[in-house]
Amino acid sequence: MSDVDSVLEQLCINTTRMLAVDAINKANSGHPGLPLGATPMTHVLWDRFLKHSPAHPEWFNRDRFILSAGHGCAMLYALLHLHGYDLSLEEIKNFRQWGSKTPGHPEYGLTPGVEATTGPLGQGFSMGVGMAIAERYLAGRFNRESFSVIDHYTYAVVSDGDLMEGVACEAASLAGTLGLGKLIYLYDDNEISIEGDTDLSFLEDVGRRFESYRWDVLKIEDGNNTEEIARAIQAAQAVPYRPSLIIIKTHIGYGSPKQDTASVHGSPLGSDPTIQTKEFYGWPQEPHFHIPVKVKNYFENSRSQGQKQEARWNNLLGKYREAYPELAEELCLAMEGKLPPDWEKSIPNFSPESGAIATRNASGEVINAIGDKVGYFLGGSADLAPSTMTTFKKNESFSAENRRGRNFHFGIREHAMAAAVNGMALHKGVIPFGATFLVFADYMKPSLRLAALMETQSLFVFTHDSICLGEDGPTHQAVEQLMSLRAIPGFTVIRPADANETAAAWQVALQSKGPVALALTRQKLPILSQETTRQGLPHGAYILSDSENPALVIIATGSEVHLALSAQKELAQENISVRVVSMPCWELFEQQSTEYQNEVLPLETPRLIIEAGIRLGWERYVGKKGDIIALDRFGASAPWQIVYEKLGFNMENVVEKAKALLV
Amino acid sequence: MSDVDSVLEQLCINTTRMLAVDAINKANSGHPGLPLGATPMTHVLWDRFLKHSPAHPEWFNRDRFILSAGHGCAMLYALLHLHGYDLSLEEIKNFRQWGSKTPGHPEYGLTPGVEATTGPLGQGFSMGVGMAIAERYLAGRFNRESFSVIDHYTYAVVSDGDLMEGVACEAASLAGTLGLGKLIYLYDDNEISIEGDTDLSFLEDVGRRFESYRWDVLKIEDGNNTEEIARAIQAAQAVPYRPSLIIIKTHIGYGSPKQDTASVHGSPLGSDPTIQTKEFYGWPQEPHFHIPVKVKNYFENSRSQGQKQEARWNNLLGKYREAYPELAEELCLAMEGKLPPDWEKSIPNFSPESGAIATRNASGEVINAIGDKVGYFLGGSADLAPSTMTTFKKNESFSAENRRGRNFHFGIREHAMAAAVNGMALHKGVIPFGATFLVFADYMKPSLRLAALMETQSLFVFTHDSICLGEDGPTHQAVEQLMSLRAIPGFTVIRPADANETAAAWQVALQSKGPVALALTRQKLPILSQETTRQGLPHGAYILSDSENPALVIIATGSEVHLALSAQKELAQENISVRVVSMPCWELFEQQSTEYQNEVLPLETPRLIIEAGIRLGWERYVGKKGDIIALDRFGASAPWQIVYEKLGFNMENVVEKAKALLV
Repeated sequence: MSDVDSVLEQLCINTTRMLAVDAINKANSGHPGLPLGATPMTHVLWDRFLKHSPAHPEWFNRDRFILSAGHGCAMLYALLHLHGYDLSLEEIKNFRQWGSKTPGHPEYGLTPGVEATTGPLGQGFSMGVGMAIAERYLAGRFNRESFSVIDHYTYAVVSDGDLMEGVACEAASLAGTLGLGKLIYLYDDNEISIEGDTDLSFLEDVGRRFESYRWDVLKIEDGNNTEEIARAIQAAQAVPYRPSLIIIKTHIGYGSPKQDTASVHGSPLGSDPTIQTKEFYGWPQEPHFHIPVKVKNYFENSRSQGQKQEARWNNLLGKYREAYPELAEELCLAMEGKLPPDWEKSIPNFSPESGAIATRNASGEVINAIGDKVGYFLGGSADLAPSTMTTFKKNESFSAENRRGRNFHFGIREHAMAAAVNGMALHKGVIPFGATFLVFADYMKPSLRLAALMETQSLFVFTHDSICLGEDGPTHQAVEQLMSLRAIPGFTVIRPADANETAAAWQVALQSKGPVALALTRQKLPILSQETTRQGLPHGAYILSDSENPALVIIATGSEVHLALSAQKELAQENISVRVVSMPCWELFEQQSTEYQNEVLPLETPRLIIEAGIRLGWERYVGKKGDIIALDRFGASAPWQIVYEKLGFNMENVVEKAKALLV
Repeated sequence: MSDVDSVLEQLCINTTRMLAVDAINKANSGHPGLPLGATPMTHVLWDRFLKHSPAHPEWFNRDRFILSAGHGCAMLYALLHLHGYDLSLEEIKNFRQWGSKTPGHPEYGLTPGVEATTGPLGQGFSMGVGMAIAERYLAGRFNRESFSVIDHYTYAVVSDGDLMEGVACEAASLAGTLGLGKLIYLYDDNEISIEGDTDLSFLEDVGRRFESYRWDVLKIEDGNNTEEIARAIQAAQAVPYRPSLIIIKTHIGYGSPKQDTASVHGSPLGSDPTIQTKEFYGWPQEPHFHIPVKVKNYFENSRSQGQKQEARWNNLLGKYREAYPELAEELCLAMEGKLPPDWEKSIPNFSPESGAIATRNASGEVINAIGDKVGYFLGGSADLAPSTMTTFKKNESFSAENRRGRNFHFGIREHAMAAAVNGMALHKGVIPFGATFLVFADYMKPSLRLAALMETQSLFVFTHDSICLGEDGPTHQAVEQLMSLRAIPGFTVIRPADANETAAAWQVALQSKGPVALALTRQKLPILSQETTRQGLPHGAYILSDSENPALVIIATGSEVHLALSAQKELAQENISVRVVSMPCWELFEQQSTEYQNEVLPLETPRLIIEAGIRLGWERYVGKKGDIIALDRFGASAPWQIVYEKLGFNMENVVEKAKALLV
């Protein structure tokens, strides 16, 4: 690089730094430490390597960039602005204000060019692994000789905190196992965290750890040396079957009087230190938000360069379409997030005559049937596939050697699985799911929440959904998990009552805009009417079985629906007429009209609710007069029928509680 | 070891294996793979190293042993029985049955000798780290020259799954940083997990990884070679400042026809394979649950040997008491889980005149005051101490070099922090807390649940407890977390409304039998009457401010109590008399008499509830006529006053909703 170029590069880097400093000062809130320390690496990456199209941030074959250390978002917003994304200087000035596109941590869907919502540490790191998986899967499925239609890198800037978080440890081990060579992470190694020097809690040898995971590890001693950073990224790109971690020593708050201290991490510099910092960089004190003309001119080409890259790819795609019309058609559907015509006809019906079947098994059949029709529907389990019934039987395992496999082995890493599923969903082109026991949804909670916040189509299969797990006991029996998932805004939880509701639930999930979890039984359940259930489920709750002038409505979900149906029969013998409402999904029901809701649950009729989960929350539906058969305790280890019976899920208790409501 | 001894040792090992196989067969449920593969290592550990007292499992200075791979509990129960713990052969025969002491995964508090509830993978591994921390802290505080009154090892058997889980990765890195040399883990490296060969998902070099964490790593190629195992444990004991991982290659289901396959992991062997397995071991087919006389005789001494060890220690403690009477007194209080006399007098009072203060700051003052009085009250944060206000100001940091430090730096590892806090609480002798932002309770959920299941006094400080976090935005703003914690059976959540409620909350926490979390504000709150709040808080909900014949009860928690008080004044001007009920803790309120509950919340008076958290759940308290001001969405990034106001937490909205209830 010539001296002139080098001076200009430094000017670009400092512009980004100072935009961030000014934005944080103006907001009187934010994290200047990372922008001052890590802008050189990010600038080099964006300037010399990142393949993207600022005018069209959704261009499918772009490189993905994640700021996993989301607190450094002022840097990201500055970069997006300078590169010509639809993010005005006004927005930068509006940093962290109500209604701005520049919130306190990057939010996917809100800001053009933000690829993932980050901030909770470890999540961005782990979602990147999911993006890299999606890229390799799509490449494996669709690329043909001379047609690398899917071919991009996934980059991230990660921090000490990201590397300490367990979810990232899990994801890193998975990425190494899967040989994700197109995953390149820049580690902002500044040796400072909020409580002080990282030595307080983090003496490990990070490089050695990542080598043990089968990553390629590179080290750079001076985070301001852009040439070295560029060479390292080039070297990382050249390693085909290992993800790369480039460890870059930086100085948090570089150039400020608070450099190398924890105090510069999360508080605005303030006025005097800002003056000193701008002096250090030879930056004009006024105006704030200064962008030198040379810098403006330099970035002016970003949009057109991106558009050129995109045009070349469109050209390639055009030729691919000619050479492989069917593949191209499928790829386009996948990229647009559409399903093939008539896909839903593949969903099987289950006949009551065919005998009882656990909803996890029914789900397995449905998954396989959909998989036959939808080539970009894929997923896997956190080492429980034989129990969650989530194996695509006609397909192989996704691995470093086999990129066409659709069965994913996430290992005993529920959290990384959820984050990876989020990353796959963010990448687009695939409809991903992750599976484990419902109780282990707890391990995944931060990622489930992010899925809801980002509104990604992340799907989750949670089997063994209650105390009916039986002998494995309270550590494995979901009790409060259903309600905890319902508590997440925008997260759809479906607990089907039989095989046909399960089929309908999958139909909802495949068409959902946001995350959906299916809660499925370990134990067998009788099969209900296909017509009623398939029609009813999309409404969230529906009349499954009615009686004339019902004196009582029994509301139940999942396996408890069958207890409700039995009680209905029993009570009929005593001339008590009961309506049974199956309520597989609160979120869908709450989207229905008030008319529909009142029709299903008449305001004046007493209600009895049955769910083998925690009581808390069900008070919402108990009405003016009602009761709840649920749990206020953990489960117990014993054969499931005994646990179920002992904890109140038996006919006597239901009949007794029902009658008490009618006195 | 002589040949005779060696034959007897093998007989003991095989007795344990066969007891486990028979128990699992009889239950027709369980995991024979681990007992068959890992009994040799466990037997050697227990037989030659473990310092314990089967007749008195609570002996304080015993070595701790955790079966982190809790699914292998049939092995643990067999060992406990053979060693003379109060666990009869009948209980072994009752494996996984209702009411037995031998549930499907080990449960602390239920089975004598079970040190921790395990099964959810990674938890046992990480709780062990907490136990080792507690041991070193107590040793640092109480041991004096020639008086190693606290001096024991913490051992665990860990599995592939444990090592894949993020929580264990976090805990391992922490343990290495803290130089926990008395922590020794045996890794049952059988290369098989449920989905098949671990190569599917776990290609990393585990040994290298643990070396990067600063662990001492030893490898044993033959898991049946008891001499090699013994030598390795000895070598591990000799390493003073590094935890040890002994990687032991084993064969899952060793000796059975299903050896080295995933199918032997989690299903009973069944009759024919059992016959073959017993043939392999030269074991009589009948009777089941056979214990050879030689084996019975051999273990007969276990109890008396343990009692002798204990007596020696009691003797040492007696001399210690003479030499250091004050220290001994404190140690005894700590060991008995008691608090010093008059400890509660140390808790500060806050005067309304002293101005507004955030409850996190008040908490900081209270923690320091209690800390001055209670030397075994300690804790730390997941790299947020300057924000959670949890630093003991007169104390130093706990580290490899300083075992007397009471401030713990857990790193950005919330999950391991929670598990370590559980381990410290299980160890006893300390009252531990962990601190982070409330939203990150999500990262800790599996350990919080275990704390509730185990009923340990694990304390948690969750600050920044709502959207009033402000600019950091929705990724950092707790919304559904309060209700998710309330949903855990037996978990106490306290959300104080001011400094004095905070002080009262700490008083409850220090005396609690189970886990308690405090939800504290980032923002300042006015100080309420010390007398009313301190009297009221222990009841969970109480009348904070009353009016004559109230037409309306406003129920609020935490910061929203002040909104309720303002609205009360506003409504009074319109001659609407309002009672304000502060409800910091559901769990405490629900323990009160119905009379008290009805007195505070009269059945016929309309109720308005205000909490800056999710709506779900509050329907429980809304009564016959009522409304709820809460959230059905995530928060937003902006200054907190604006977010609060925009999302409905403003006077106009409260007054409007209040009046609507009185129409």
